[in-house]
Amino acid sequence: MTRQPGRREGRRAQGAGTRQMPFANVVNRYPPISLLSTDEIEAIHRSSLDLLSMTGMEVMHEESRRLLKAAGADVDEANQRVRFDPAMIEEVIGTVPAAFTLQARNPAKNLRVGDGNLIFAATGGPAFVSDLDRGRRAGNFQDMCDYIKVVHSLNVIHQEGGCPCEPTDLDPDSRHLDFYQAAIRFTDKNWQCWALGGYRVEDALEMLSITLGQSREELRANPATLTVVNSNSPLRLDIPMGEGLLAMARAGQPVAITPFTLSGAMSPVTIAGALTQQNAEALALIALSQIAAPGAPVLYGGFTSNVDMRTGSPAFGTPEYAKAQLASGQLARKYGVPFRSSNVTASNAVDVQAAYESGMSLWSTIMGGVHLIEHAAGWLEGGLTASFEKLILDAEMLQMMRSFLDPLAVDTESRAVEAIGEVGPGGHFFGTPHTLARFENAFYEPMLSDWRNFETWSESGARTGTERANAIWKDLLRTYEQPPLDPAVDEALEAYVARRKEEIGRGHLNAA
Amino acid sequence: MTRQPGRREGRRAQGAGTRQMPFANVVNRYPPISLLSTDEIEAIHRSSLDLLSMTGMEVMHEESRRLLKAAGADVDEANQRVRFDPAMIEEVIGTVPAAFTLQARNPAKNLRVGDGNLIFAATGGPAFVSDLDRGRRAGNFQDMCDYIKVVHSLNVIHQEGGCPCEPTDLDPDSRHLDFYQAAIRFTDKNWQCWALGGYRVEDALEMLSITLGQSREELRANPATLTVVNSNSPLRLDIPMGEGLLAMARAGQPVAITPFTLSGAMSPVTIAGALTQQNAEALALIALSQIAAPGAPVLYGGFTSNVDMRTGSPAFGTPEYAKAQLASGQLARKYGVPFRSSNVTASNAVDVQAAYESGMSLWSTIMGGVHLIEHAAGWLEGGLTASFEKLILDAEMLQMMRSFLDPLAVDTESRAVEAIGEVGPGGHFFGTPHTLARFENAFYEPMLSDWRNFETWSESGARTGTERANAIWKDLLRTYEQPPLDPAVDEALEAYVARRKEEIGRGHLNAA
Repeated sequence: MTRQPGRREGRRAQGAGTRQMPFANVVNRYPPISLLSTDEIEAIHRSSLDLLSMTGMEVMHEESRRLLKAAGADVDEANQRVRFDPAMIEEVIGTVPAAFTLQARNPAKNLRVGDGNLIFAATGGPAFVSDLDRGRRAGNFQDMCDYIKVVHSLNVIHQEGGCPCEPTDLDPDSRHLDFYQAAIRFTDKNWQCWALGGYRVEDALEMLSITLGQSREELRANPATLTVVNSNSPLRLDIPMGEGLLAMARAGQPVAITPFTLSGAMSPVTIAGALTQQNAEALALIALSQIAAPGAPVLYGGFTSNVDMRTGSPAFGTPEYAKAQLASGQLARKYGVPFRSSNVTASNAVDVQAAYESGMSLWSTIMGGVHLIEHAAGWLEGGLTASFEKLILDAEMLQMMRSFLDPLAVDTESRAVEAIGEVGPGGHFFGTPHTLARFENAFYEPMLSDWRNFETWSESGARTGTERANAIWKDLLRTYEQPPLDPAVDEALEAYVARRKEEIGRGHLNAA
Repeated sequence: MTRQPGRREGRRAQGAGTRQMPFANVVNRYPPISLLSTDEIEAIHRSSLDLLSMTGMEVMHEESRRLLKAAGADVDEANQRVRFDPAMIEEVIGTVPAAFTLQARNPAKNLRVGDGNLIFAATGGPAFVSDLDRGRRAGNFQDMCDYIKVVHSLNVIHQEGGCPCEPTDLDPDSRHLDFYQAAIRFTDKNWQCWALGGYRVEDALEMLSITLGQSREELRANPATLTVVNSNSPLRLDIPMGEGLLAMARAGQPVAITPFTLSGAMSPVTIAGALTQQNAEALALIALSQIAAPGAPVLYGGFTSNVDMRTGSPAFGTPEYAKAQLASGQLARKYGVPFRSSNVTASNAVDVQAAYESGMSLWSTIMGGVHLIEHAAGWLEGGLTASFEKLILDAEMLQMMRSFLDPLAVDTESRAVEAIGEVGPGGHFFGTPHTLARFENAFYEPMLSDWRNFETWSESGARTGTERANAIWKDLLRTYEQPPLDPAVDEALEAYVARRKEEIGRGHLNAA
């Protein structure tokens, strides 16, 4: 392939026909919007502590109960109920770091979590995958790999989000190994691991140790993966999640602790009630993480949304969701814990609904002071499906938000009083020296938006944004280039995966 | 038609199958987001005054030049150039009212402009009209009437926006009469009039006088229509717009003074430069309005966007647009003038691009403290087309923003500590007393969003949001009921229109 040299070449390193922004750290310069008064936030805080002391949580994981009891919690082994002293909670969460750095295989893509930075993670966890050509299908290894390649190619995405779609064609007990290997091979960005059971965390860390050439001690001091731990709302922590949380915390790897408090179903029908419950569950698990490993990095996850009360269906990107994210950001800031939220939609298609629900999510989470946006790109159908076209749609919206967050120059030359005077009444600014000196990088250049006039757009096929998104991900996949990986590392990973698959096949989930 | 009585009947008064919110005043409780520092806003202010004193504006309208000269401006009749003393500008704009009330035919739909209220106006001015069934076509009287009927039926829309599409099948000199008559007949909401030439303003006021049974003096004290006056950027006021501005101001009717400063074309390629020019033009015309009629209600219009520098096409709903709206809101607040902005997109289809560009517009204008959103519903193709489906898409997004702005209850009962304790770990909240007492109005109920699961949605036709919007506007149009109008008033309007058409046909644009 011959290349056209030019100033914009850097923007096209991936995707021959796709313009995009370069990979970059994003800083949110806006002071967060507050939904609630300080008194209201304090009331939710106090209520959640009341809930933890009076009702408590059911902690199914034995070791977690033991740790909590040793830290002073009241534990009833008969029903696995743990009740928390508010003072203990408030004390132990004080060790959470306000910010930390996540290593990537490519150090230029290391991520700073907290400190006003904004991280966009690709979607993780869907059972299905879809695109316009082939429709919706069960998650599978080939699609998973292709999706990771497109995630790698989209510069605006900072982090792989913990497996775009479940590779259901692989062994459930060992498919995390296949995912980890693909994430390491196909992208040099940071990737999220699985916390469903401690052995999946261990495998991630062993493979990161091989990849980065760092000891487990070094990894503990310099985290290189992240995971999400959900409480089983209401008020329950199950065994695999308990195991995963402790394994991550002890290994120094960050956990986004995220109650899944769907108002009207697993939580009260009032958003303030759902937030109270979210806060109680988050505080309990954050406390557990700090008891297990003081100073372990965690995030405060807000996922409160609501159900449709006529059908029971979950709804996302709703006004209630937007409000809950603003309030969640306020709570996270109260505790000095980095805030994790999400870009969500309940739409079944990559249509206007998907766009406006995601728009509601992005604006409210970013204005709410979020640090990590999970599912920032690709999520469809309330998280059941990873869509290739939604990935592109979201990437465009993320680029727009990123450009919106860039500062505006207001210096004398930018105010342009002289240049306006030179053009004068009734003139135009095309081709003036002031314009020529600046036009090339003056404005945001879209990846997906089509600004041509109706006639030109019609003559070239009248393609909708979703149809254009289809062409873009295929272009990115076709021109994808695998980031270089030391062959010795690749071989060592291959050997590790082979050994572990053999062990798991013999029923030994934990590494020998 | 027999009616099902029930608690939600009110929501379905228009559109048998369409759920929607009731008509209501909307208050924006959020303190506006600031893009720029106080110093930066001051710098733009000073630069725009420099521009007005050094370069000035070309004022083609003779009477406006005369008024400005009498107020102390420096006027060069040879080139119609008017230069303004900054002190004069700062002094005369002090009489602009910070808020005012706009009468509607139905007093329950009167509108308060300013004071933290948020008004959503339907799109006005497009040359074309479109829908999914019939595609894009020239604006015409039948579509104009149908569109006004749907605008009337959508409760979230506060105001008709000044003719949804140009009725190109009618005489250009008198079609404003047909539009005014249709606006009065088909909706009881406030409607915007045309300011292209003073006689079109006069006709609006005479017809409002008949409709409301109020004298012109009464209308002056209690405005009942509003219009947009654009400067011809850069730095020019033409004759029809000058005439319209003076006619409106003297009649006590509000004008949204809106420079059309497209960065890179009619304005500098820098957004700060475009804002400087916008501010200069807005200040000059606001000053003129107050010189002609001190205390006349006006709005500060922000419309700064940018062009695509590769093609020259205008772009809307961009990151630059969003920033410009935040800064424009800051400037308007500095002057104590209500702020007008818009909901815009450059998309040619009612697709994801239309949704995300409108989402960028709505969030930034609302967070920027806007008071009047022009084109809040229906605008497509950079304003060339009024789309029936876009009208529904926007109405849904407006409803969501309105619901987002509603306060969140955080009282003890809402925080629900007891209710959560009663459900306990692992339970669910369906059917609990706390839920049953509140579920009916707990959450935002969408008009357009489909929250059903993928299987149910697929089985019922897998319709996209745009296809559902098509069904909704047709449902609203089919079930439309004309708001009652006194037959004597209707007759008097009919007679007025007939007389004026006859006069205009004889070449007498101004009423006898």
